Amino acid sequence: MRPSGRKPDEMRKVIIETGVSRHAEGSCLIKIGDTHVLCTASLDERVPPFLKNSGLGWVTAEYGMLPRATHSRMKREAKNGQSGRTQEIQRLVGRALRAGVDRVALGERQITIDCDVIQADGGTRCAAITGGWVALRLAVNNLMKAGQIITDPLSAPVSAISCGIYAGQPVLDLDYPEDSEAGVDGNFIMTGDRLVEIQMSAEGSTFSRDQMNVLLDLATQGNAALAAAQLEALK
Amino acid sequence: MRPSGRKPDEMRKVIIETGVSRHAEGSCLIKIGDTHVLCTASLDERVPPFLKNSGLGWVTAEYGMLPRATHSRMKREAKNGQSGRTQEIQRLVGRALRAGVDRVALGERQITIDCDVIQADGGTRCAAITGGWVALRLAVNNLMKAGQIITDPLSAPVSAISCGIYAGQPVLDLDYPEDSEAGVDGNFIMTGDRLVEIQMSAEGSTFSRDQMNVLLDLATQGNAALAAAQLEALK
Amino acid sequence: MRPSGRKPDEMRKVIIETGVSRHAEGSCLIKIGDTHVLCTASLDERVPPFLKNSGLGWVTAEYGMLPRATHSRMKREAKNGQSGRTQEIQRLVGRALRAGVDRVALGERQITIDCDVIQADGGTRCAAITGGWVALRLAVNNLMKAGQIITDPLSAPVSAISCGIYAGQPVLDLDYPEDSEAGVDGNFIMTGDRLVEIQMSAEGSTFSRDQMNVLLDLATQGNAALAAAQLEALK
Amino acid sequence: MRPSGRKPDEMRKVIIETGVSRHAEGSCLIKIGDTHVLCTASLDERVPPFLKNSGLGWVTAEYGMLPRATHSRMKREAKNGQSGRTQEIQRLVGRALRAGVDRVALGERQITIDCDVIQADGGTRCAAITGGWVALRLAVNNLMKAGQIITDPLSAPVSAISCGIYAGQPVLDLDYPEDSEAGVDGNFIMTGDRLVEIQMSAEGSTFSRDQMNVLLDLATQGNAALAAAQLEALK
Amino acid sequence: MRPSGRKPDEMRKVIIETGVSRHAEGSCLIKIGDTHVLCTASLDERVPPFLKNSGLGWVTAEYGMLPRATHSRMKREAKNGQSGRTQEIQRLVGRALRAGVDRVALGERQITIDCDVIQADGGTRCAAITGGWVALRLAVNNLMKAGQIITDPLSAPVSAISCGIYAGQPVLDLDYPEDSEAGVDGNFIMTGDRLVEIQMSAEGSTFSRDQMNVLLDLATQGNAALAAAQLEALK
Amino acid sequence: MRPSGRKPDEMRKVIIETGVSRHAEGSCLIKIGDTHVLCTASLDERVPPFLKNSGLGWVTAEYGMLPRATHSRMKREAKNGQSGRTQEIQRLVGRALRAGVDRVALGERQITIDCDVIQADGGTRCAAITGGWVALRLAVNNLMKAGQIITDPLSAPVSAISCGIYAGQPVLDLDYPEDSEAGVDGNFIMTGDRLVEIQMSAEGSTFSRDQMNVLLDLATQGNAALAAAQLEALK
Repeated sequence: MRPSGRKPDEMRKVIIETGVSRHAEGSCLIKIGDTHVLCTASLDERVPPFLKNSGLGWVTAEYGMLPRATHSRMKREAKNGQSGRTQEIQRLVGRALRAGVDRVALGERQITIDCDVIQADGGTRCAAITGGWVALRLAVNNLMKAGQIITDPLSAPVSAISCGIYAGQPVLDLDYPEDSEAGVDGNFIMTGDRLVEIQMSAEGSTFSRDQMNVLLDLATQGNAALAAAQLEALK
Repeated sequence: MRPSGRKPDEMRKVIIETGVSRHAEGSCLIKIGDTHVLCTASLDERVPPFLKNSGLGWVTAEYGMLPRATHSRMKREAKNGQSGRTQEIQRLVGRALRAGVDRVALGERQITIDCDVIQADGGTRCAAITGGWVALRLAVNNLMKAGQIITDPLSAPVSAISCGIYAGQPVLDLDYPEDSEAGVDGNFIMTGDRLVEIQMSAEGSTFSRDQMNVLLDLATQGNAALAAAQLEALK
Repeated sequence: MRPSGRKPDEMRKVIIETGVSRHAEGSCLIKIGDTHVLCTASLDERVPPFLKNSGLGWVTAEYGMLPRATHSRMKREAKNGQSGRTQEIQRLVGRALRAGVDRVALGERQITIDCDVIQADGGTRCAAITGGWVALRLAVNNLMKAGQIITDPLSAPVSAISCGIYAGQPVLDLDYPEDSEAGVDGNFIMTGDRLVEIQMSAEGSTFSRDQMNVLLDLATQGNAALAAAQLEALK
Repeated sequence: MRPSGRKPDEMRKVIIETGVSRHAEGSCLIKIGDTHVLCTASLDERVPPFLKNSGLGWVTAEYGMLPRATHSRMKREAKNGQSGRTQEIQRLVGRALRAGVDRVALGERQITIDCDVIQADGGTRCAAITGGWVALRLAVNNLMKAGQIITDPLSAPVSAISCGIYAGQPVLDLDYPEDSEAGVDGNFIMTGDRLVEIQMSAEGSTFSRDQMNVLLDLATQGNAALAAAQLEALK
Repeated sequence: MRPSGRKPDEMRKVIIETGVSRHAEGSCLIKIGDTHVLCTASLDERVPPFLKNSGLGWVTAEYGMLPRATHSRMKREAKNGQSGRTQEIQRLVGRALRAGVDRVALGERQITIDCDVIQADGGTRCAAITGGWVALRLAVNNLMKAGQIITDPLSAPVSAISCGIYAGQPVLDLDYPEDSEAGVDGNFIMTGDRLVEIQMSAEGSTFSRDQMNVLLDLATQGNAALAAAQLEALK
Repeated sequence: MRPSGRKPDEMRKVIIETGVSRHAEGSCLIKIGDTHVLCTASLDERVPPFLKNSGLGWVTAEYGMLPRATHSRMKREAKNGQSGRTQEIQRLVGRALRAGVDRVALGERQITIDCDVIQADGGTRCAAITGGWVALRLAVNNLMKAGQIITDPLSAPVSAISCGIYAGQPVLDLDYPEDSEAGVDGNFIMTGDRLVEIQMSAEGSTFSRDQMNVLLDLATQGNAALAAAQLEALK
């Protein structure tokens, strides 16, 4: 029995509200249950030094949490520096989104995706990727409307979902009470039926290949639902 | 003529939505026109070392801006450290809120007010103080309901408003286009008809005592309206 | 009764000794009673990036305290980084001095005013502004003598004084014992009969508009005396 | 054809030399081809604060690279701080090793595994895990010989190997020239026939589930060979 | 011919003014020609953790330069952190002063010597040691007068002087123009006729043992003169 | 009697193994008894800004210790920043090596010598200088073979040895047990029969000129032996 009463393969309610920022070139507020992440896309016509005059574009991401997004207040990273966890997540979000970008078609410009967790209840990195892709899509749409990009550099949505083994049972889309108890869990990033990145770990435990395959089946189902929600929100 | 079409003594629309955070002991989202600040109050039963065994409580504040709260994306402070401006603002917010607290009645506990700017259009520090007091009030209400505090440590609302001289005319509640042009401006923090803090400055310019008095009249009117909005939101 | 035995509107003795640094383009040691601040002006023919090719000059300030300028030794900021208080003060000193500068007449060059507190007894930021202006005046005088500046970019002296309510009585020029007890105090920066910046606050308390006006009267009298001392020192 | 001339499922030569540090409680130098990592285990009878009086032990890891371990000299992290990549790797190594530890049997003590890359040619994080387990095993052996630990907290070796798709072909144990070209690659951490952690990613690309399964087969074979080498070295 | 017109074995004028700080337990302003260093001694009844309950005292030193102590303005270390040079100097000053202290007689307390360079013209570290000892002596005198120390923990003065080979000639007490040209120079710290520390170096050059001996003769003469000045100032 | 049983003027066994790094332009592993330092030379065709277009080359050094090079594990400097001791040592190594370089002959390029202590047993800075020169020599040999340097910028080897007074007796080449007990010790850097740098100090003690001369005699003997070992290793 899951703490939320959900069925093993039941995701939390997904709400993606677009256009929430007055200033950003693309934005959305994604709510996966009680996990709320504000995603903005910022366009910069300059690329990082290593891409100068390469003709290639760049997509990067930064991640943060408001200090009281969590049950207990966390120290503000602006005062203490980014933790290893934060750096790891933002590197992951950037890699995931780049996997779905044709950087030649994007042209020599950079889009920065800021993912800021307003409220956390597990699965913030997956929400950041899923919402971040929507913000990116909106920014690219604007560039195409303005004629600055001719060929669409994006194809199918990139989304991410967590799965894990909670109380001996494989479950989809872990919330915080499940996440903090699960022995084995993973984040599965997909685009269409292709895999972008898999991170499975077992803090203080191990898992079999069969278990891995069950989780991967769940994740495939979950990402299909997320892709539908992304496309719906963009209509 | 103001860029927004407002009359000289006309404030922007004020919306204060309470209870927006699932985790915080008190919270609100305050919108002063397009300036949106999320304010949360976090209770800590431990006080800072200098107050240990003093019987006195403490209220402190921290302030931040999401990188794309502004027209152009700003560098993330978690990567670069808090700027002097940020530190100055959070010290101001903390001092302002403490001025309205009876620290003996609060008892030996600390309440931290986090003010995070989701979207900026001028006047963020004033919105942080005004919204921060609402979050503080809600957290104190909870402590009183729970019987942990007997005597109410708060009295009249603490609020803040900016005034300045824009295009030669004294105006109330400057938005960003006005703020960036005004030669003289000030932030006026009040509680009831008492002053808590005044900061008036004139970047590259000066002002007369008469001008100061006109701005102070405007600020008194504006803070009265804010106090009414604070009390209304708390009903 | 004031701890020093001074009358309510009596300032401490002011001594401004010019030309105290062999290397700086302008310098003075200002002593306001037992508060001693060494002020130097350093000329740099390059301006900050945001002013490049603007034709405008820049005046900025930095502030520091020797570790044993105070009653108890403070931690050295070179080992611990600048505190929020230090950053707030140096931003104030810079703004205050710029208010008295015609940046077109100054031309595209930067003058940095270093204000280092050798000994502290309250009012160090006011002494830094008052002495800083003298150092700036001397550096500008040299540039004019050398023909590098034609039109004088400075006019009336910029000075600053603190006032507060100590033991229920409005007093001028608070020393440390008064400053640490005063419920309400403010720093008033003026040039001629114009106001440059006002910062009034009430740590844990509030004040009325009448009290504000009394303090402002005292400050006007104090700044007139400081301006006379500045001009006398420059003769 | 692989740049090294190896067959697709051929690992590099593995050499594990134990007892290389005079001071450490356990140590080895692991050479996977031209990737050389020095691993030391340091015992501390104090655990981190969150484990005090819990009766549970802790294993943690730190990772570093000598500046000229790489083809071009990298900046020294002692001067610039640990990069996000470094932090990510050392968190991974610690998690991986903890998965193979019975923390009750270890008792309330901490073992820190330092993994320092002397020379790099791809696969340094895998070598760090594989060598780190050997250093950990030796330190635990010493504690058991000394009677400080009764029940062995370790079971099967923990090891790690990379696999990827290079020039369209799945290959085992990527060296640097392969690693920098491979579109898809992964690190597979195992103990016995159980999985500890999987990280598969596709910088700028994607992969199918079939490809994943092929790589996982290769990794299973590679980790079996590494486990044999670990046990051989410990004889 | 020396730039200053001094004879090879002629020191600059030495002035040591004691009691210059209102707050410090001991203080002096030492002027060696145009090198001016303010030295204060601060008493702390707590020792560093490694000496707790050892019965031994500690003397330590910190060193700084005001940004415009030098010909060109240097960056403020409070904004940029202490340079390697600064750390090296303050470690040297602390070691030098400790060499002249009986730490049992001092008792379990710490004295911190702050040496802040107000104006620099070469030889600041030597002036810091020489002046630092005077400040230390005064602080110890106060402790003895107050009966907190019975046996005098200090004996002969500790002083320091630089010597070098300038334009082919051995010279005593290098000023800045000499220091920046000298191929070989050294700092010689002595107490009575005993050596405390010698640091001789030859940036981009080398020296013979004979040259070393000539410089050491000069240094012995210079330190004798400094010791006389120290004792004279303390009368 | 020395703890190691060595005679007063007996050095530890010296082993210098060259060509230990696959990537570096020059490298060696120097073992002075149980002190093992890996030295690499990295060529950079760009010089630091202050040498641009000067025609002069630059040699610099960086120093580090693996956390468990020492008896007790030290904190990793990559997490905590370089200590003052580390910075002092690397400045010393760089100065020492530059003293033996004709920077005109080297031409406008930079060679960075990284000295990383793999295992420590006293005298690491001396081993770093001695081994660093060998790495530098090898890198320069390569540049000469390639015709990029015509005139050899190096002449006699630069080496360093420590001497001190242990248990009342002057001894050569202190190991850690001696180093931690010696009242007086020094590091003597030489090239041929010329001195490059002398650093003698007496933590909590003093020494006579006669003692200094005895130690200098020992050091001259030791450096001659080291120079022979350097040349032998380069054959």
